[in-house]
Amino acid sequence: MTDRPRLTPLAESLPATVPFVGPEAQERARGRPFRARIGANESGFGPSPRVVAAMADAAGQMWKYCDPENHELRDALAARLGVGIDNVVVGEGIDGLLNLAVRLFVSGGTPVVTSLGAYPTFNFHVVGFGGRVVAVPYAHDREDIDGLLSVVRRENAPMVYLSNPDNPTGSWWEAADVERFAAALPATTMLVLDEAYGETAPAGTLPPIDVSRKNVLRLRTFSKAYGLAGLRCGYAVGDAELIRAFEKIRTHYGVNRMAQAAGLAALADQDYLAAAVGRIAAARARIAAIAQANGLSPLPSATNFVAIDCGRDGAFALKVMQALIARDVFVRKPMAPGLDRCIRVSAGPDAELDILAAEMPGALADARGN
Amino acid sequence: MTDRPRLTPLAESLPATVPFVGPEAQERARGRPFRARIGANESGFGPSPRVVAAMADAAGQMWKYCDPENHELRDALAARLGVGIDNVVVGEGIDGLLNLAVRLFVSGGTPVVTSLGAYPTFNFHVVGFGGRVVAVPYAHDREDIDGLLSVVRRENAPMVYLSNPDNPTGSWWEAADVERFAAALPATTMLVLDEAYGETAPAGTLPPIDVSRKNVLRLRTFSKAYGLAGLRCGYAVGDAELIRAFEKIRTHYGVNRMAQAAGLAALADQDYLAAAVGRIAAARARIAAIAQANGLSPLPSATNFVAIDCGRDGAFALKVMQALIARDVFVRKPMAPGLDRCIRVSAGPDAELDILAAEMPGALADARGN
Repeated sequence: MTDRPRLTPLAESLPATVPFVGPEAQERARGRPFRARIGANESGFGPSPRVVAAMADAAGQMWKYCDPENHELRDALAARLGVGIDNVVVGEGIDGLLNLAVRLFVSGGTPVVTSLGAYPTFNFHVVGFGGRVVAVPYAHDREDIDGLLSVVRRENAPMVYLSNPDNPTGSWWEAADVERFAAALPATTMLVLDEAYGETAPAGTLPPIDVSRKNVLRLRTFSKAYGLAGLRCGYAVGDAELIRAFEKIRTHYGVNRMAQAAGLAALADQDYLAAAVGRIAAARARIAAIAQANGLSPLPSATNFVAIDCGRDGAFALKVMQALIARDVFVRKPMAPGLDRCIRVSAGPDAELDILAAEMPGALADARGN
Repeated sequence: MTDRPRLTPLAESLPATVPFVGPEAQERARGRPFRARIGANESGFGPSPRVVAAMADAAGQMWKYCDPENHELRDALAARLGVGIDNVVVGEGIDGLLNLAVRLFVSGGTPVVTSLGAYPTFNFHVVGFGGRVVAVPYAHDREDIDGLLSVVRRENAPMVYLSNPDNPTGSWWEAADVERFAAALPATTMLVLDEAYGETAPAGTLPPIDVSRKNVLRLRTFSKAYGLAGLRCGYAVGDAELIRAFEKIRTHYGVNRMAQAAGLAALADQDYLAAAVGRIAAARARIAAIAQANGLSPLPSATNFVAIDCGRDGAFALKVMQALIARDVFVRKPMAPGLDRCIRVSAGPDAELDILAAEMPGALADARGN
């Protein structure tokens, strides 16, 4: 007997880990704000002004619940993607959709395959539903699709995660490679294909959407190139039976009402998206140039950030990150062996990259001197 | 073998039910909008104009993720409630927090006690995590706290749900009765006390908050009296160890960034809240008068809606609801035996209640004539 309600054995076993500490928590601990917020792969270029206006317009309607079917937004997404509305489900960001996808397929002891150092929130959900994360090291700073395939087969795993383009390296596979990977998977293995960074990738990175494939779930978001991380609005695309399964467990009124208005306005302003993608590409180039000017090696990136190889071990890269943070520049870094030699800098406006450029030499000197 | 990934046995067993069909879906099916939206217990009085302004101001910052700790909002809530920040967790509406609370304590076969006809989304989550709903009939149109207690003991149930004030009846227990109920529960039974309608209840309805009680979780929201249903922002208050358990499973970046700004502004404008509560009370009185003028019996209500006893059986009340909907008045009704003689009408501005008043005689005639 205990003197309080008992958690389920699974809940009891879970650590109270937080996948990421937010920049706001760091600001509170430091007692002062960051001058450059380029650590969370947000888009400092922000959303389209039309989206901002649509959100302001929607503010007066927030006394209403959202349409639980998210019909208008799904309709617009389906039209854009060339699929049926029944092939699309909208959720509280990719994080919320990953929660649901894992919950549908993972229970006690289920092996789930991912890459060592890939998106920690996915692992958080796998562990949270009792699954067992089987992590395959990156190869040449890319997710190792042959290695993933081999481990899926060895473990008879019902789910495998691939982000393309990849976070935290910024690397990518071409569409043909992803299609080869998907085709080689057992029919009973669900490929969770996280395309959060799809809009910033080179043409030919995203495979055509094929909803006849029953074991591929595509995940996309308004958080990155669309500049709407705070909206919490993502979508999943797949076979209609797969998408229908989300209805069994999703919180039907879970999506903020403004997300629908903002998402519709964002989709409608593809000119802005194209311009934002251009700005992001220019910012990537500038981050790479800042790295090179400081003797560091930027990794090629198809995303809205650049991983910078600091040229030594993980301990050194950690010092570089800490020195940047001490200089009011919010950046993050991968922690997995092999990737941990890098720091990760998000694309942002010139004013923020000016600060990065100004502080990087001092941060490196600090790191070398410690 | 199947030709596709297999859902977990639990997920496979779940129906693809939707707890509520939204008014938007009805509008799409009807091909025309409702003239009065008084069915979902939203507040047509809306949020404070200061909240609307705060949301419009926040629109330009939506490129940032929320603070995953929701620190400022939790801080403000804790100060208002007289508890520590560690006693408060913010989530994606009460629906999202119910998902988490159930997931922490309910697994395969766990008996969970609620009232027959109480909040269906709670049941949706219980079933969704493999629990077994044990439902106790209402007594005299109130949740039967002695009956709930008796069934908790019989089932040795680790969780019991009580909404006070209650949806869908509008009834309430006084604080002393709720405290007696909580004190009588086994220490190992978690009382999920849904106080979504707490702000509109008479003084003396909500027990003082006592976070030393380890088996009571209080749930509140900005959706009802604060007029922010579309925001998806609720909060749970309890013992710090209980609240800490939510960290194990919640989606840390799940709350929309605007929710923090709007919630803070809403809390800061208590004058508006008081005025809104007054408007809601006046609207309740008017709904009751409309019911009585049509020979129907309004139930007393501590909420932002009124259940109206249509004086015959459930089939008749269903016809009344359908006739109102056909006349472009969106209302809902309870479906549980005993409660199903009622329709449920949400408080709203006079313009919407004018439409209700105008259409009710015809709707009743339609229902009687069918």
